Amino acid sequence: MRFHTRKWIKPQDLNPNRTLFGGRLLEWIDEECALYSIVQLENSKCVTKYMSEIDFKSSAHEGDIVEIGIEVVKFGTASLTLKCEVRNKMTRESIITIDKIVMVSLDAHGKPKPHGKTEVEFVKDRLK
Amino acid sequence: MRFHTRKWIKPQDLNPNRTLFGGRLLEWIDEECALYSIVQLENSKCVTKYMSEIDFKSSAHEGDIVEIGIEVVKFGTASLTLKCEVRNKMTRESIITIDKIVMVSLDAHGKPKPHGKTEVEFVKDRLK
Amino acid sequence: MRFHTRKWIKPQDLNPNRTLFGGRLLEWIDEECALYSIVQLENSKCVTKYMSEIDFKSSAHEGDIVEIGIEVVKFGTASLTLKCEVRNKMTRESIITIDKIVMVSLDAHGKPKPHGKTEVEFVKDRLK
Amino acid sequence: MRFHTRKWIKPQDLNPNRTLFGGRLLEWIDEECALYSIVQLENSKCVTKYMSEIDFKSSAHEGDIVEIGIEVVKFGTASLTLKCEVRNKMTRESIITIDKIVMVSLDAHGKPKPHGKTEVEFVKDRLK
Amino acid sequence: MRFHTRKWIKPQDLNPNRTLFGGRLLEWIDEECALYSIVQLENSKCVTKYMSEIDFKSSAHEGDIVEIGIEVVKFGTASLTLKCEVRNKMTRESIITIDKIVMVSLDAHGKPKPHGKTEVEFVKDRLK
Amino acid sequence: MRFHTRKWIKPQDLNPNRTLFGGRLLEWIDEECALYSIVQLENSKCVTKYMSEIDFKSSAHEGDIVEIGIEVVKFGTASLTLKCEVRNKMTRESIITIDKIVMVSLDAHGKPKPHGKTEVEFVKDRLK
Repeated sequence: MRFHTRKWIKPQDLNPNRTLFGGRLLEWIDEECALYSIVQLENSKCVTKYMSEIDFKSSAHEGDIVEIGIEVVKFGTASLTLKCEVRNKMTRESIITIDKIVMVSLDAHGKPKPHGKTEVEFVKDRLK
Repeated sequence: MRFHTRKWIKPQDLNPNRTLFGGRLLEWIDEECALYSIVQLENSKCVTKYMSEIDFKSSAHEGDIVEIGIEVVKFGTASLTLKCEVRNKMTRESIITIDKIVMVSLDAHGKPKPHGKTEVEFVKDRLK
Repeated sequence: MRFHTRKWIKPQDLNPNRTLFGGRLLEWIDEECALYSIVQLENSKCVTKYMSEIDFKSSAHEGDIVEIGIEVVKFGTASLTLKCEVRNKMTRESIITIDKIVMVSLDAHGKPKPHGKTEVEFVKDRLK
Repeated sequence: MRFHTRKWIKPQDLNPNRTLFGGRLLEWIDEECALYSIVQLENSKCVTKYMSEIDFKSSAHEGDIVEIGIEVVKFGTASLTLKCEVRNKMTRESIITIDKIVMVSLDAHGKPKPHGKTEVEFVKDRLK
Repeated sequence: MRFHTRKWIKPQDLNPNRTLFGGRLLEWIDEECALYSIVQLENSKCVTKYMSEIDFKSSAHEGDIVEIGIEVVKFGTASLTLKCEVRNKMTRESIITIDKIVMVSLDAHGKPKPHGKTEVEFVKDRLK
Repeated sequence: MRFHTRKWIKPQDLNPNRTLFGGRLLEWIDEECALYSIVQLENSKCVTKYMSEIDFKSSAHEGDIVEIGIEVVKFGTASLTLKCEVRNKMTRESIITIDKIVMVSLDAHGKPKPHGKTEVEFVKDRLK
């Protein structure tokens, strides 16, 4: 799994118990999956369709740095299934794992649109 | 299921496709579950421990009004299992459903703390 | 008065004195009145025209849960007059009360538009 | 009346009708009154106690620049009464006016604290 | 230099070290320069093109009030060069200074557009 | 240069001209530099001290994905000098470059604190 986006936990990311607000974490994951799909499927219209069960393994605190990892599970016809893990950057302790997040590529009318992709591509190769 | 909190979808709640950003929706649900648990368990230290699979059934658009419904599935010793649905207030179309969200009551040291509750209580009855 | 929307006071809702920022509270009230009017008048173009005097009765703190209540005072031709109270969900202590909030229904050109409504309706009855 | 703080209306300040969200405007006014009081009363613990009726005279749109004006109405023992106007910077059209906003100076225990001020002071004179 | 916009440092403006987040400060400066340029050049399409080096001289804390000052350095053909200082309102201590911020006036196609201005104008004189 | 954090440009990141708000971009860069320094210097108290001149080379639009790259220029006694570039993820077009950003490691009293580091370390090696 490749970990890219990093977040610094700031006061506005906390719940009143002063730990990382779970809703904020889910927001970060959803954004990361969307942008990963847009890059892979070369379609800016990608939406979240399904997430498998979510286990909140450990918490994080103000000032902690977390990193978000994404891995492709499967390329469907119009979909892309991802796996996601968020972990503490300094200790590598896992904070949350979601085994299956299904993203769907849409056309201009909001209907599923086959993307023709079957494997992970790197932008640098496309630009050669 | 009782629907309480209502949200008006504003520009800052949209993804670049101009539909409701899924991450925002998950943030709203997580907040609603936290506050529901705090009220029921009479403990301000309640955290999200687990969410079962999430199906994004339909989308919502700028200006739509959504309402968030919560229902108790089970009272555990230190936990409370909730079911959640978000629907469009005007059409009642379901946007998202999560069958099991496990909230845990914690003590001052962050350890699970038995809450002694076995059924839904109304604040007005407690205040009598 | 019916209390619907609930808010959990988080770090980003506080002023530097660590009590609920009054501006945030007014923002929440304005949103609740807007969405209430949209639902009742079945017109998504409803704007706030007037608020009567506002008394900040008590404060609220991080982690408190507040609920926002709305009641119809009067149906005008193109307007809807509401009364609003925000109270602490756990203690029912009143935080703020506003006796008259006048919302106006607008047409596509931003002109007042008669709404034809004379009493509170429930969405479930409209959908029958 | 002296107009200081200026705001540029950005996408996140709009309601779904694409005009300035009234709640955001009230949030800006409340912040401006708080900081004006803190500077005048030389006490960082100043809270909003009361606002007289509010008339939303005109609206504002994305990209507009508004400026917020404050004027002292009266120095009380522990209070400061302000008058506030928000207007469009380019056209000087008035957007909102609030005739009386009562701010109260508090001590460390949250009780009203006499401030000993009777007239507007300029920071540059204090620092001489 | 004239100081207009004032900001009250709230919890959401802090970094996890509990001092003013530098990124927030830069965001405030950029907004102030944009709106200053829009007013002076009478063109709502003004963008930031260049900032000279930035020295973070001192920090600020929760509850502090800062004010942002702008001064014109030079009118170019399609540009406006500004100087900016942010200081603590109560102590006048300088927090940050940027000697040159180049703003550019654009036409509808995003190309530089001569603005025909050569000196600072006051809105009240334009409206006479 | 290694590019890690990715951002998806959403409505709340735009200025009223509907391009990426420069202030938001600077906020993202400042956060990325802070967290990079915290990880490298193993000190959570790192602050931005200086930024060299900033050239806004191109803009970005809603729905674009940008990535933020950081590279170490020099390890000082209590400081770390970084170089930063933000580019469009899909086209690799450069949006902004800052050649020198000086971060300082502080002790508990806010004084510069020697960090003892002389080269880039990877967390995975530290955890072996």
